[in-house]
Amino acid sequence: MKILLIGTGNVGRTLAARLMETAHEVKMITRDPESTKERPIKNVGTFKDWMDGYSGLELIAYTEISETPDIIINATNGNQSLNALEMMPAKIMEGSVLLDLSNGLDTSKGMPPSLTVCNDDSLGEQIQRAFPKTYVVKSLNTMNCEIMLDPSKVDGAHDVFMSGNKADAKSKVKSLLNSTGWKNENIIDLGDISTARGTEMLLPVWLRLWQHFGHANFNFKIVK
Amino acid sequence: MKILLIGTGNVGRTLAARLMETAHEVKMITRDPESTKERPIKNVGTFKDWMDGYSGLELIAYTEISETPDIIINATNGNQSLNALEMMPAKIMEGSVLLDLSNGLDTSKGMPPSLTVCNDDSLGEQIQRAFPKTYVVKSLNTMNCEIMLDPSKVDGAHDVFMSGNKADAKSKVKSLLNSTGWKNENIIDLGDISTARGTEMLLPVWLRLWQHFGHANFNFKIVK
Repeated sequence: MKILLIGTGNVGRTLAARLMETAHEVKMITRDPESTKERPIKNVGTFKDWMDGYSGLELIAYTEISETPDIIINATNGNQSLNALEMMPAKIMEGSVLLDLSNGLDTSKGMPPSLTVCNDDSLGEQIQRAFPKTYVVKSLNTMNCEIMLDPSKVDGAHDVFMSGNKADAKSKVKSLLNSTGWKNENIIDLGDISTARGTEMLLPVWLRLWQHFGHANFNFKIVK
Repeated sequence: MKILLIGTGNVGRTLAARLMETAHEVKMITRDPESTKERPIKNVGTFKDWMDGYSGLELIAYTEISETPDIIINATNGNQSLNALEMMPAKIMEGSVLLDLSNGLDTSKGMPPSLTVCNDDSLGEQIQRAFPKTYVVKSLNTMNCEIMLDPSKVDGAHDVFMSGNKADAKSKVKSLLNSTGWKNENIIDLGDISTARGTEMLLPVWLRLWQHFGHANFNFKIVK
């Protein structure tokens, strides 16, 4: 699939690397590619050094996007997602499938953080309201980025949730997930985008589990 | 163990029945036992008819509690829990272990309900603040009442969380859980009572999963 990936941080790079491994065409989006390429990346060198490990991976500016992809992935910090998406060309956003995996953490009240939005709203819904002509699918937001597109990182069966208003858009995201190792039986379609409230509200227990286990290599499974 | 069980609704009756089956001594607490006994119970007759199925099960008034139990279980509706607990004799509450499994649902904004408290507070913490000399342990609140004290109701391994400030109190609750079939490897102690925020916030996704599956016979498992 042709993927536009917004977010050049750890999550974005982890997903880009795995998408390249699983034979997708990936363009990463940033404000200023030249400046991003010079950014230091721990244990690697620069962003450009990191990119050089993935032949064919592109890094382009928001203004350089010319082609509608199969899926746009929002891998930005949830607190910045709306701002980042506003920089996308309107004609690219319209009619596109947007896989949103963001979480909004509020660290102003200490650690562990609380959520910036929850209970009667969600980031997924906020993005859907801001871009009513885009098909927002919330998914992958309930696990560490290493697992998102590589479920084999955790031993045994575990689940991924999906929320979105448009069935076709969810099917497209499902195909992407399948291509990275997710089995249909482990993809739970909860319903419309308002169900993202439920999955975004998993983050507080996820954070406590992370503290408890001392690592992030775990995921939720619904046993029935 | 000697159990005082507050709550005579479906959750309270389900737990009382299972506690009797697993050889615990159960006193159910209500405001007016005579009136409660006459209450109609669907498919059974009256509350008294239901009680007659469990030899030794007692139903007493708050004012009739004379003995400190091993564990007090709060099985009331979360919106009524503080009021119900205020009716408990202070000398019984002081120094007791209170297993709180309540959830606070706000149905005023339509279905599915939102939570009455979340994100920067929890019902577990509210109860702990209201009763600082009681050892509150939040647990069992993330699953249907049929599973709470009978994990075998769901096939395969699945998990129960625990939050509380006092290690001894959590050990006592753990012993109770063990006696009903929970294995130690499936009891996850998340830490102090503030971690109840995380488990109480599982309810919104639980409600959506209930809608999705069409039944409540499922539970969370953390796969790692």
